[in-house]
Amino acid sequence: MMKEFNVIGKKLAAVGGQDVVTGKAKYSPDLELPKMLVGKLLYSPHACARIIELDVSKARELDGVAAVLTAEDIPGENSYLYWYPDQPLLVSDQIRYNGDAVAIVAAENEEIATAALDAIRVVYEPLEGVFDPEQALNQGTRRVWDEKENLHSHYISEWGDVELGFAQADVIIENTYSTHYQEHAMLETESAVAYIDHDGTIVVYASTQAPHRDQIQIARALNIPEVMVREITPRIGGAFGAKDEANVQIHAALLTYATQRPVKIIRSREESIRTHVKRHPAKIKYRTGATIEGKLTAVHMVAYGDTGPYVNAGEEVMMTMSAYGAGPYYVPHARSEAYTVLTNNPICGAFRGFGVPQVTFAFERQMDELANRLRMDPLDIRLLNCIKTGQQFQPKAVVRMGDGLRACLEKASQLSGWKERIKISREPEPNLKRGWGVATSFHKVGFDKNVSDHSSAAVNMAQDGSVVVRTGASDMGQGAHTVFAQIVAEHLGLKPEHVKVIRPDTTMAGDAGASVASRVTVFSGNALIKAAETIRQTLLDIVVEETGADPELIILRNGYAYIEGEQINLRIADLAAKAYERNLPMQASGFYSMDFPEAEMPDGSSGYQHIVCYGAHVAQVLVDIETGQVTVEKIIAVHDVGQVINPKGLRGQIEGGVSMGLGYALMEELHVDQGIIQNTSLESYLIPTALDIPQIIVDVVELPEDETPYGAKSVGEPPTNITPSAIANAVADAIGKPINYLPISPESVLVAIKAASE
Amino acid sequence: MMKEFNVIGKKLAAVGGQDVVTGKAKYSPDLELPKMLVGKLLYSPHACARIIELDVSKARELDGVAAVLTAEDIPGENSYLYWYPDQPLLVSDQIRYNGDAVAIVAAENEEIATAALDAIRVVYEPLEGVFDPEQALNQGTRRVWDEKENLHSHYISEWGDVELGFAQADVIIENTYSTHYQEHAMLETESAVAYIDHDGTIVVYASTQAPHRDQIQIARALNIPEVMVREITPRIGGAFGAKDEANVQIHAALLTYATQRPVKIIRSREESIRTHVKRHPAKIKYRTGATIEGKLTAVHMVAYGDTGPYVNAGEEVMMTMSAYGAGPYYVPHARSEAYTVLTNNPICGAFRGFGVPQVTFAFERQMDELANRLRMDPLDIRLLNCIKTGQQFQPKAVVRMGDGLRACLEKASQLSGWKERIKISREPEPNLKRGWGVATSFHKVGFDKNVSDHSSAAVNMAQDGSVVVRTGASDMGQGAHTVFAQIVAEHLGLKPEHVKVIRPDTTMAGDAGASVASRVTVFSGNALIKAAETIRQTLLDIVVEETGADPELIILRNGYAYIEGEQINLRIADLAAKAYERNLPMQASGFYSMDFPEAEMPDGSSGYQHIVCYGAHVAQVLVDIETGQVTVEKIIAVHDVGQVINPKGLRGQIEGGVSMGLGYALMEELHVDQGIIQNTSLESYLIPTALDIPQIIVDVVELPEDETPYGAKSVGEPPTNITPSAIANAVADAIGKPINYLPISPESVLVAIKAASE
Repeated sequence: MMKEFNVIGKKLAAVGGQDVVTGKAKYSPDLELPKMLVGKLLYSPHACARIIELDVSKARELDGVAAVLTAEDIPGENSYLYWYPDQPLLVSDQIRYNGDAVAIVAAENEEIATAALDAIRVVYEPLEGVFDPEQALNQGTRRVWDEKENLHSHYISEWGDVELGFAQADVIIENTYSTHYQEHAMLETESAVAYIDHDGTIVVYASTQAPHRDQIQIARALNIPEVMVREITPRIGGAFGAKDEANVQIHAALLTYATQRPVKIIRSREESIRTHVKRHPAKIKYRTGATIEGKLTAVHMVAYGDTGPYVNAGEEVMMTMSAYGAGPYYVPHARSEAYTVLTNNPICGAFRGFGVPQVTFAFERQMDELANRLRMDPLDIRLLNCIKTGQQFQPKAVVRMGDGLRACLEKASQLSGWKERIKISREPEPNLKRGWGVATSFHKVGFDKNVSDHSSAAVNMAQDGSVVVRTGASDMGQGAHTVFAQIVAEHLGLKPEHVKVIRPDTTMAGDAGASVASRVTVFSGNALIKAAETIRQTLLDIVVEETGADPELIILRNGYAYIEGEQINLRIADLAAKAYERNLPMQASGFYSMDFPEAEMPDGSSGYQHIVCYGAHVAQVLVDIETGQVTVEKIIAVHDVGQVINPKGLRGQIEGGVSMGLGYALMEELHVDQGIIQNTSLESYLIPTALDIPQIIVDVVELPEDETPYGAKSVGEPPTNITPSAIANAVADAIGKPINYLPISPESVLVAIKAASE
Repeated sequence: MMKEFNVIGKKLAAVGGQDVVTGKAKYSPDLELPKMLVGKLLYSPHACARIIELDVSKARELDGVAAVLTAEDIPGENSYLYWYPDQPLLVSDQIRYNGDAVAIVAAENEEIATAALDAIRVVYEPLEGVFDPEQALNQGTRRVWDEKENLHSHYISEWGDVELGFAQADVIIENTYSTHYQEHAMLETESAVAYIDHDGTIVVYASTQAPHRDQIQIARALNIPEVMVREITPRIGGAFGAKDEANVQIHAALLTYATQRPVKIIRSREESIRTHVKRHPAKIKYRTGATIEGKLTAVHMVAYGDTGPYVNAGEEVMMTMSAYGAGPYYVPHARSEAYTVLTNNPICGAFRGFGVPQVTFAFERQMDELANRLRMDPLDIRLLNCIKTGQQFQPKAVVRMGDGLRACLEKASQLSGWKERIKISREPEPNLKRGWGVATSFHKVGFDKNVSDHSSAAVNMAQDGSVVVRTGASDMGQGAHTVFAQIVAEHLGLKPEHVKVIRPDTTMAGDAGASVASRVTVFSGNALIKAAETIRQTLLDIVVEETGADPELIILRNGYAYIEGEQINLRIADLAAKAYERNLPMQASGFYSMDFPEAEMPDGSSGYQHIVCYGAHVAQVLVDIETGQVTVEKIIAVHDVGQVINPKGLRGQIEGGVSMGLGYALMEELHVDQGIIQNTSLESYLIPTALDIPQIIVDVVELPEDETPYGAKSVGEPPTNITPSAIANAVADAIGKPINYLPISPESVLVAIKAASE
């Protein structure tokens, strides 16, 4: 049954979107303050070296230099701290990756700041680094950290009896896959502006996904109470996980604290690519067992992820890879292992998908290889194994609603003309081979049970009925704030333009958690509804008081309160004014953390239900077997997102995710030599442009959840998880050979064709 | 029984106070923004005139002029609007007082802005103004407004049967009193800085007592939703009611809206004195009846207040005068009338005391005249008539706790050595006469029942246990934010330095009402306690979870949770971190509006209880009968304020109020000629300096209320109400002649001595 919504499900241009496309939008780097200094970091030229001498005295003496700080000038903890306390803000002893910084300067202008960096004398003793993650695990290999092994962690997700599962299998497919680094390449690089407010508060404007977490990190580095730090997030020009970690905001705060003046730091593109975390390159060994009918009986996955020297979110990413090892299918016996390996390579961490694109690629290639072996249609074998409501997908969890995957697959089949593809030429030219690939994935909404994961929000209705929404949740371009405006407008019967969503500000809003993990709509949306409900009740009370109406029948819509078929029609603005007159509360806060209803696991133990979203993509590609060039002709992307809040934003998220997946599959490749990235510009690191994007057919399956805001789930990460696998499967289908690695560059396609022919 | 507090009742320096005394504190005028324009207003040279021509074209053409606006350029309502919609922001037709403005300009600098004002051509036709409030009410006098009478309103507070009361009286005292204008003379004049935020919000920094009300007024003038206006209140250098009304913030917003650039407007002292509301000059006729024993039987008061041409809060002030007509005594039969009269004189409105100083002066002079007539001691006659718990003081209200006045009088008697004053020479020199005066007053906390009067507040505990308090309540120097920090610290067991109180910001905080009416501590304090209580419960829940302790026994104090005599001692910072880990809410909002418990009135009708605070002052003065010079030797000021929150701030409020009262009584005099103030500088309008201040002995009576935060009441206005009366009574006592007018200037003392001798 469809509910009738007034604002939810309606196409709405992104709030402030016009400013973005006309260039009027202001970002952190645009902020100008009187007497502002330019801040810069001095990075190590090495990936692995010992610091023998660090002398900043000459730099400090330069005219126009306000401060030069090294590790010893940090008042609090010299660490990014949040995930793991291993990454120093400024290195004093040993360089462990090429993004390490040793000093920061603040100067009157760019030129003086650069001159100050040049005037710092650093003597390094280069050390032999650890650059091969496989070698890193060998006995006798140099340790990245003297005090610990190069194997940081080894996670195992396991259920059933995997050996029994393989014993029950009629066929077993075994392959090893490898994936590469991916760079976020968000259009706006990292930046921060810090200044001291009149009451001594350190205010930091930063392009961040996690303002409240940054606040803690800054407070600890400065050794001051958290409330004496205020982080504000202006508009963000893309993030994708690169701005989940703190970047230069702590350094800007340190310089402001030292100089008592405003400081701006902007990372150049070179610095940005060099320093921030990447998508983990992974090596993934898969063993998949199935019956002769194609039913999966067992999966054993072992993934190795090169996380660089500092762990940050890297361990969590590998844990996620392990958790998703069985894919969105019902697998009765599974063992899924993930190793987090330390090296002196670029650091890896959060990136849209958070480990799932890698494991999906491997798993979905396995499914196609299984289908090949069994002479089954790749789409049919997926339909056969689709996970269903209440089935296990993690050691202690079952999926809460499980009909979405089947529905997505069926719709993708239909929209792509999957069954009719045999009518289309597989070889339109002698050198051109056409292929089709299907892939699926799923994604949990939010983190997991027993994890700190919550959002708070506040709603305030003014006397004219217009509303301010205060949330700590960043909108980094994904449209979260437009969605918030819709949710609150729907709940209070307003037009969305009368709801103003404040950009995150840690002093203004409570912690809403980071804008990650496809959690924002559900977590902040529910917190907003709880806050708005208080105000809604006030409005209803006044209508009842004024009219004696049955509150159950009152409808709030389009700025009015009315009752169907009756003469009652009151302006919400007037109700708001009356609420103020009558001393009724028009401000409220809301708080949400996810409920995980209990579930009985197959082994009889107690587990829980988890909300997940699903998707299925079909890719149609042309491969030039002479040049190895892959052209994607079209992508059909179907997602189960629950109730759609804003179809326009949703399409943007899916098209963006597909494009990012296409780049990951075919084009993007970071060249790392002895730990040093060679292509640190967008001229040398190629991401898709408009001309690279194929026709993308987007559709949705709307199966509303009951615990989520108006039944919405998520769409931030899923598209990126699936597209690379669909393309890889399509290329394999076109050339009739397996594709076991990403990226699928022309060279690698030629290698695949040749290798398999030999 | 004394409760044991840890933070409440402890002397605390004002938060940020050190910055004030060292000159580091920043106020609105200190705000500098890139590309900021200087805004200025063109005021009328007349107090009453018709505008024949207004030509701004030449001013607009000047280089460096960004905007010149007149009434017709205002997008929304051309009115200050809030109290009454009668005062235009810019006048287009008729000038009604000398503070009216006809145009505003924004220019690149001060010089150009001044040149632009000079380039505006205005042709006025001067009109005969209405400058005598008594004449104003005569038939045939010109009307200030064509469309209405010069009598704006006539309020009557009445109970019992006043004619019967006078019939029961053995003596009746009848006199007429007059009081003068008072100028607030706050050290920081009015100012505002406006700019447009990235999302189009009009942000206004303003020195204001009522940010949320200003927000509404600005939105209406600009014709935009309220939430598109954000008013922020930086530190305020005094207000006293002058900043309760909007002043230049709407004009700054208009200029920013027109130019899309930041605009700063600062009123010069001359402009400040010329434009903002004053304390009403009043003429008060009193008839007081009593028995031969001194028991009051009836009071009839009639007050006339000259409010100028625009009503704003003027009617409310006169209504208050009417409400307080019976004074803090039990009067069985009362009739108290107040007339609000329109003239072309300076406008009058809110000023610390809000009508009560005038009526107290008259009432307390009557009490002394009554005591004289009955040969009673002035203090004894007051003790005899003190209002008591449950006794009527307004048509429908009784005082909630009434023992405070007697206690204040007894303490003031003791501290002043009242009974022993006869031992001190009344004539230390032939030309010097010494006198003693006692006076009392009371003051309601907040407005009244059935009036829009509420506060909201929010409290947010960070992961390290430090706290942010968000409130829309202005601290204009009275120490409200220090009190808030103490209340929240006490409630959450923190040190006050771990509580950060945000300066008002309409986007950040809900409406807390204006900082007026001695309401802030009680209203915002209670809202804060409600918000803090949610967090306190979370902390207690965790202690119980961790230790199994009985929650009733847990004490939160000094950053720790502990149980007397047990080993339990947990850091609140750790509990806060655990709350975040465990997804428990650490943000909450609170809302408070006053409960007015029912009371039965003497006539059997239903009324309500109202919280009031009391005070009694004794003044000792020396009068030079040759020069008329009055020297105040000492003031004893005793106040019933409920539980004292911050003794240091409380003493500051009382000393400040006494000083302001002394200025009002003896020195401050605005010379108004044909509606034009002649002394618009602090060189010509004299306020007391440190050398004018006598010894002030401050003491309190702490009778805690049960509905208020930790039992606190108020102290903002009461001292100012009482001191002038105590001084007037002391002067009358010294010279042995009545004093029926304020100010008691040397000239007027000589007149009094002479007049009474004749």
